[in-house]
Amino acid sequence: MTGAAHIPHVFLPRPWETDVLTLTDPQVHHLRRVLRAADGAPVSYTDGEGRVGSGALGPEGVRRGAESDVPRSSPALTVAVAPLRSSDRARIVVEKLGELGVDRLVWLTTQHGQGEPPRADKAARWAIGALEQSRGAWLMAIDGAVGLADLPPSTWVVHPGGGSLPQPGGDVTLAVGPEGGFSPDELALAYPTIGLGARVLRVETAAVVASGLVLCHLGRMNT
Amino acid sequence: MTGAAHIPHVFLPRPWETDVLTLTDPQVHHLRRVLRAADGAPVSYTDGEGRVGSGALGPEGVRRGAESDVPRSSPALTVAVAPLRSSDRARIVVEKLGELGVDRLVWLTTQHGQGEPPRADKAARWAIGALEQSRGAWLMAIDGAVGLADLPPSTWVVHPGGGSLPQPGGDVTLAVGPEGGFSPDELALAYPTIGLGARVLRVETAAVVASGLVLCHLGRMNT
Repeated sequence: MTGAAHIPHVFLPRPWETDVLTLTDPQVHHLRRVLRAADGAPVSYTDGEGRVGSGALGPEGVRRGAESDVPRSSPALTVAVAPLRSSDRARIVVEKLGELGVDRLVWLTTQHGQGEPPRADKAARWAIGALEQSRGAWLMAIDGAVGLADLPPSTWVVHPGGGSLPQPGGDVTLAVGPEGGFSPDELALAYPTIGLGARVLRVETAAVVASGLVLCHLGRMNT
Repeated sequence: MTGAAHIPHVFLPRPWETDVLTLTDPQVHHLRRVLRAADGAPVSYTDGEGRVGSGALGPEGVRRGAESDVPRSSPALTVAVAPLRSSDRARIVVEKLGELGVDRLVWLTTQHGQGEPPRADKAARWAIGALEQSRGAWLMAIDGAVGLADLPPSTWVVHPGGGSLPQPGGDVTLAVGPEGGFSPDELALAYPTIGLGARVLRVETAAVVASGLVLCHLGRMNT
């Protein structure tokens, strides 16, 4: 589902102080071996903080070309998710939210949660892969763990039997609980709850589907 | 994210001709070893065609109890997806669409598609797992491959730069293309196109997110 964009897109963190930016070994492998890109092939690049460029592959890295700034999408969406017990399912959350352009993923400490957040370096690699895949300019931040009570007042809690999406008043935080659901104490925090239908969804499914619905609701999907 | 429903839910296909319905070996393993359910433990069951029952675990299977019919959700949603090259990613499509309650998954033959549909028995197992997990009463059907031209007129095509969700006139089919996108010939079939934002999404991400948006749009998520 990539459409016309066939130019490889790579994440190259700041500082950009030279005309040629160095690629990591996995990036070189992907460009040269998997995509069979040769010297001179066009490559787009981003610092993950809104700056993008159109460069060309060279023997020592990416030769920089025209650069420009991509504004951050607004309102911002933070998604707080109870850690999953399976690394495969944690990867789905990080990768899919990263592709969708969620601004920030926060691991959420909950009373019924039984999982642990994935290792930070592993999660960061998944997010970078999703940024490159989806041709984004803003890398999803990942942090936590925090508890539900520490989330901002503009938090919407995904919960079976919850209501429709509220009218947003600005940036939104979405909270997705663990397999055992939120506890009565947690629900007593009185954030608005939103439902996702009659089916019982896995944590990663709820996180991805709710993120898509809220991004659409915030006008960030033009649909 | 299961909420209060802790009673195991199993798929037991028709015919139901006896008071005790036989479980498969993996179901017995899951109930007895993973969930530690003992004789007499409550178990709900479904035939995947709208019939559900509240039974109890016994030495020879599930002893049937009160049974009722769950009407099929309406309008129906069929999702046609270009086969994926990775089995892990195909599994995400089958499992997540099954959890969400998509009525039918059709593998879509496309001009740029490079994947093959997963083996039918494997895909059916993933769909059954999703039905049990999500406590559904209607098993997602899986068939195909068919081409885009064979889909009904009420088909919406997911495509970069596409528009908003159209007003549905009844049942809806959603078409999600391969990594290379739909060809100009395919787009010339003139189904309405819908966009999913500025990011380039993987096939499985587009399929899951678009299914969620359309189910919500059809009023099937009460959000």
